[in-house]
Amino acid sequence: MPTAPPRMATAAVYEAPNTPFVLKQFPLRPVRRDEVLVRVSMSTICRSDIHSYEGRRPNPCPGILGHEIIGVIAAIGEDIERDMRGEPLKIGDRITWSEYFFEGQCYYREVHDMPQKCQGLRKYGHDLAAEDPHFLGGFAEYCYILPGTWILKLPPDLSDEEATPLNCGVATMAAVTEAAAISLGDNVVIQGLGLLGLYGAAMAKARGARCVIGLDAVPSRLKVASNFGVDHAIDISCGGAQSVVTQIRTLCPPDGADTVIEVCGIPEVIRQGLQMLRVGGRYVLAGLVNPDANVTIDANMLVKRWITMCGVHNYHPRHLIQALDFVMANRGRFPFKEIVDAKFALKDLDAAFKKAAERTVLRAAIVP
Amino acid sequence: MPTAPPRMATAAVYEAPNTPFVLKQFPLRPVRRDEVLVRVSMSTICRSDIHSYEGRRPNPCPGILGHEIIGVIAAIGEDIERDMRGEPLKIGDRITWSEYFFEGQCYYREVHDMPQKCQGLRKYGHDLAAEDPHFLGGFAEYCYILPGTWILKLPPDLSDEEATPLNCGVATMAAVTEAAAISLGDNVVIQGLGLLGLYGAAMAKARGARCVIGLDAVPSRLKVASNFGVDHAIDISCGGAQSVVTQIRTLCPPDGADTVIEVCGIPEVIRQGLQMLRVGGRYVLAGLVNPDANVTIDANMLVKRWITMCGVHNYHPRHLIQALDFVMANRGRFPFKEIVDAKFALKDLDAAFKKAAERTVLRAAIVP
Amino acid sequence: MPTAPPRMATAAVYEAPNTPFVLKQFPLRPVRRDEVLVRVSMSTICRSDIHSYEGRRPNPCPGILGHEIIGVIAAIGEDIERDMRGEPLKIGDRITWSEYFFEGQCYYREVHDMPQKCQGLRKYGHDLAAEDPHFLGGFAEYCYILPGTWILKLPPDLSDEEATPLNCGVATMAAVTEAAAISLGDNVVIQGLGLLGLYGAAMAKARGARCVIGLDAVPSRLKVASNFGVDHAIDISCGGAQSVVTQIRTLCPPDGADTVIEVCGIPEVIRQGLQMLRVGGRYVLAGLVNPDANVTIDANMLVKRWITMCGVHNYHPRHLIQALDFVMANRGRFPFKEIVDAKFALKDLDAAFKKAAERTVLRAAIVP
Amino acid sequence: MPTAPPRMATAAVYEAPNTPFVLKQFPLRPVRRDEVLVRVSMSTICRSDIHSYEGRRPNPCPGILGHEIIGVIAAIGEDIERDMRGEPLKIGDRITWSEYFFEGQCYYREVHDMPQKCQGLRKYGHDLAAEDPHFLGGFAEYCYILPGTWILKLPPDLSDEEATPLNCGVATMAAVTEAAAISLGDNVVIQGLGLLGLYGAAMAKARGARCVIGLDAVPSRLKVASNFGVDHAIDISCGGAQSVVTQIRTLCPPDGADTVIEVCGIPEVIRQGLQMLRVGGRYVLAGLVNPDANVTIDANMLVKRWITMCGVHNYHPRHLIQALDFVMANRGRFPFKEIVDAKFALKDLDAAFKKAAERTVLRAAIVP
Repeated sequence: MPTAPPRMATAAVYEAPNTPFVLKQFPLRPVRRDEVLVRVSMSTICRSDIHSYEGRRPNPCPGILGHEIIGVIAAIGEDIERDMRGEPLKIGDRITWSEYFFEGQCYYREVHDMPQKCQGLRKYGHDLAAEDPHFLGGFAEYCYILPGTWILKLPPDLSDEEATPLNCGVATMAAVTEAAAISLGDNVVIQGLGLLGLYGAAMAKARGARCVIGLDAVPSRLKVASNFGVDHAIDISCGGAQSVVTQIRTLCPPDGADTVIEVCGIPEVIRQGLQMLRVGGRYVLAGLVNPDANVTIDANMLVKRWITMCGVHNYHPRHLIQALDFVMANRGRFPFKEIVDAKFALKDLDAAFKKAAERTVLRAAIVP
Repeated sequence: MPTAPPRMATAAVYEAPNTPFVLKQFPLRPVRRDEVLVRVSMSTICRSDIHSYEGRRPNPCPGILGHEIIGVIAAIGEDIERDMRGEPLKIGDRITWSEYFFEGQCYYREVHDMPQKCQGLRKYGHDLAAEDPHFLGGFAEYCYILPGTWILKLPPDLSDEEATPLNCGVATMAAVTEAAAISLGDNVVIQGLGLLGLYGAAMAKARGARCVIGLDAVPSRLKVASNFGVDHAIDISCGGAQSVVTQIRTLCPPDGADTVIEVCGIPEVIRQGLQMLRVGGRYVLAGLVNPDANVTIDANMLVKRWITMCGVHNYHPRHLIQALDFVMANRGRFPFKEIVDAKFALKDLDAAFKKAAERTVLRAAIVP
Repeated sequence: MPTAPPRMATAAVYEAPNTPFVLKQFPLRPVRRDEVLVRVSMSTICRSDIHSYEGRRPNPCPGILGHEIIGVIAAIGEDIERDMRGEPLKIGDRITWSEYFFEGQCYYREVHDMPQKCQGLRKYGHDLAAEDPHFLGGFAEYCYILPGTWILKLPPDLSDEEATPLNCGVATMAAVTEAAAISLGDNVVIQGLGLLGLYGAAMAKARGARCVIGLDAVPSRLKVASNFGVDHAIDISCGGAQSVVTQIRTLCPPDGADTVIEVCGIPEVIRQGLQMLRVGGRYVLAGLVNPDANVTIDANMLVKRWITMCGVHNYHPRHLIQALDFVMANRGRFPFKEIVDAKFALKDLDAAFKKAAERTVLRAAIVP
Repeated sequence: MPTAPPRMATAAVYEAPNTPFVLKQFPLRPVRRDEVLVRVSMSTICRSDIHSYEGRRPNPCPGILGHEIIGVIAAIGEDIERDMRGEPLKIGDRITWSEYFFEGQCYYREVHDMPQKCQGLRKYGHDLAAEDPHFLGGFAEYCYILPGTWILKLPPDLSDEEATPLNCGVATMAAVTEAAAISLGDNVVIQGLGLLGLYGAAMAKARGARCVIGLDAVPSRLKVASNFGVDHAIDISCGGAQSVVTQIRTLCPPDGADTVIEVCGIPEVIRQGLQMLRVGGRYVLAGLVNPDANVTIDANMLVKRWITMCGVHNYHPRHLIQALDFVMANRGRFPFKEIVDAKFALKDLDAAFKKAAERTVLRAAIVP
């Protein structure tokens, strides 16, 4: 049982793009009947945190970044009795929760079952630190969980390193894998072998893919890829785009890959990805999260070859459950724990961001 | 009962691009056990015939163009007893048949149920007239139906004008409509109101679309559109692309169209089409059948808005049945007969092509 | 603009099974911030109201029955600004709303998108009249709409007779039609031609069914069936079950119906329904809403013929929108207004129930 | 390279139900242009062979039983150049092939992509031995492969024990697994742990099932189940049907299994299977291959709980490829080789059938 939350707690405040984080204290207030307060166990730095920090994407400041978070319940409102799967919740439980929250009715949720696209949706790590309840981001000692968040209890034998990326990277890949509609025996190509790509490879294998081909240019990523289900890791910096397409078509007889998944964030790769697919193949785009990802494609190829392209962004609450269940069922098969390969104290957040931005670590964790 | 086929018959031979068709006689031989010979009742000029004739697309010459054909069985091989739906076939029956044929096993057919994409597939209207059996195109008095073709018997009360486009335009639109995955109450936009677009509008209505919006710049097409299920026919030559997008978003509350269908063959419209869609919307491309239909799109928009784009080309045999059933069930509701709005004798094929190319007729028919 | 609601209003109270309804007055209180109060325009008697009234199904008493209701907003809480499609709501608007409501998170809603199966779901027409807010059923002058209800604004040109059954019978048939997965050109059999069956026939047609066959034993229903899209109305009381199966197999060449829909509530028809289907066919059960609908089937037939059977009960909120859009788009084609073929004042509710129970009217309406 | 086929070869002839097999010689003739002749490497005894042998199912006699077969190409017709995936074929290649064959067009293949349900379909192991080409079953030295069969080349490192069941049991389970529509994280129950059930468990795991529960009453099967992906093997002979249902509902929080798969062939288990499912769950029946598998179900439960039941019988050609790819990708994870746990010479076929019928072996193999 954790001790009662203190009166004040510390956060690493993002004051402006490209300036050092500043440790500050803010008051903790009692939870309302439909809120939870957690003591943060671990937060990991997502690529979008880096985009915010580097000013390539607007984020309110001063604020508290971080949305890949897990924590232990320190206080729980009287209306919150169970998690999204019906498990009872109490003080001391370690939990994950959706990176976004939304209250009320919205057309996209009610009609199209896309709560992740509700108008007025809010995300953790995207608020002003000065406003109540101050703590709504991962890089802090505490975090409030507001109404309209989906909460999921974590099993005790799951490590923090495996649990922390669940609510962003892993759940997104569960959504991507669903959209990829992988059949038993499919050949799957993954463009980009960061956290998303490595989890994507493991999920493709876990769905019965026969052959998973991973593409990247970072040697350290190519090296670990085989541990995560990648059968062929191809260095795209060798030999030119056309050579990569040719290699893949050779590896996927008789006529190319069934599915290509883009999680590298580079629009130019789309043209090559299309050329890797068989007639009737499927292309899922998920890494192109920044505006103006312009690319020129030959629409005739889509027509003649019955290609389907679809985009995926964020995830449905069911994917958070799938992410957890996937990791629990496959943690003996794939060393997910190793993806979080560096830990930092809250006071060392600048150093952590530096390493993450340089890609010298796969996923940097903060243990506040 | 038709009379026995003569020894010789006439075809309008395509000798070279942009030169007049030449009437020639070729011998008719007895059908083999797995062949059918039909006396052509009517052929219509498809846009791809015009592309071939104008030399924008390779086609063997001298040859016989035309693949939208119906005819009456003049001779039937002993192995052909029934049509693809199990109906008995005999001399004198009026039939339609798939525009393509393929014999033997092929990966795309056996594994992916895409017989329309078999390697080595042949199409009617795409052979040398000099080679046996000479008659494999629509602009001739007779046509052989070779093994690997899907044959479908026509009901007596269907007019030739309604029946002839079934095996190309209408069946293709059945494939497009399936790919469009229209739900009851959907808002559907159709880019292009030629034969494909008009049938597409009628099919969208027949699938329960609430509102069908048709886009074109040809006044005569916009004028007839409402007869074929188009609720709002918008002239895209008025007001600019952005204005069209705005109009459509207003007509499709709360956040845009569920589905957009492209059947106009102009790559540039894709950017606008994407902007008309709601989050989670679906874009079917079917008109971009010529190579290098390059278009620049913002892939981030696909990602952020969960858009699906898919291409459709030709059709599955089931769509030929669907095309016929659709026309039979809806011919009282939509005046399909009027789409074939000009008839010509075989000797007047040049004049027919001229009018079709100019778009002064919707669909020109040859009655040989 | 309606006048302000009075202090007291009248309801026809269901005091015990099989006893006359009693007119009583209850107080109207101001709406809370997340509630709406409507002046009831019309309520219709659903078969389940009759089951409750006749004591074959538990319902709290004394209570107010009736859940197929429409009404005009008399008072609206400050938090309710828009309907489920984003349309603004205000006093004086005529609306329909989901027959059920649910607040909070529930596994079936959050994970499986089945809000209609949330644990703790409540339905209109199923509460004690004595408890606040008293008015939660259709057979009364007013009705409160509580939080967690989906509200949908009605277009002005829709008649009350067309609008009232939307939120139960018609929306349920939208769910059934979706589950039936009707393709263009399908042959569809509907077992039972009450309100559900007639709307089901019209929807099957509106989805592109080639041939709709309706089965019933009530002459008046068989007589009107053709107005609602039924191509062949078969009297099952003539000729025995096997004869009906044979007729249907003859009407659906080459090997039976693609889809059978059960909306008659008689378990025995399932065996015949199975025999009507082609290999790979689909059977949707929706009328068997009473417990212990036991039926003996030959599971080997399901296996050998790849049959799919699925049950549908209530509906998803999207189906309420689909129901409205379907009726709006097809009210010129099918005379939905005639299905509500008798109107009664609130004080004549006993007479209305009597006629509905006897099936001498298709759908009895109360205009309180 | 194998030696040329001899003039005569030996088969174990099934002369009548329940009488000993008789070794006989028949002539081998040259292959026709569209045929293949294989030297049988191994055949396994399927449960349906036992049903035929014991006279519970009609099979022509005298005949050659056996349809789970692999062999090495001894002679190949000039028209057969490639396997169904496009791989070149030549004398000496070890192959598997579909247990059924069909030539020509058939409604179920052309329209519904169900070649396994073509009218006039023939199966290996179901012909008279006296008629040309004599060798069309597995329990013989040679076997002809006739036109309309799907052939698939086997990789060299796959053992005969892993390869032989591919074309019946394993491919059927690929079809079942597809019909089961397993999502990442699903809870799956399998009724029956014979060869079908064990492969089904492994496939469910390979599709990402979180928890697989296997039910049987044979101790030896329950014992090996955990090697094939079964997380909980439950002995249904202990504690009664209701206790089993209760156990499963406890193991699958919050409300039961997502999918139940029946491969035990006992109609009575269906009632229990239905009770194990969550709302919206899916039940695939595949073991009930004998006529009159009558079972009484409560159709109201299907309705109220939105249950889907579907039957699967035989398989699509794509499932043969999936079966091979699945075994190749997962043979290090699951000991498929051990399922074929007894080998016999052709002359000992009686002994092999005896052990298989007694269930003292899992799968008996003949090495002729």
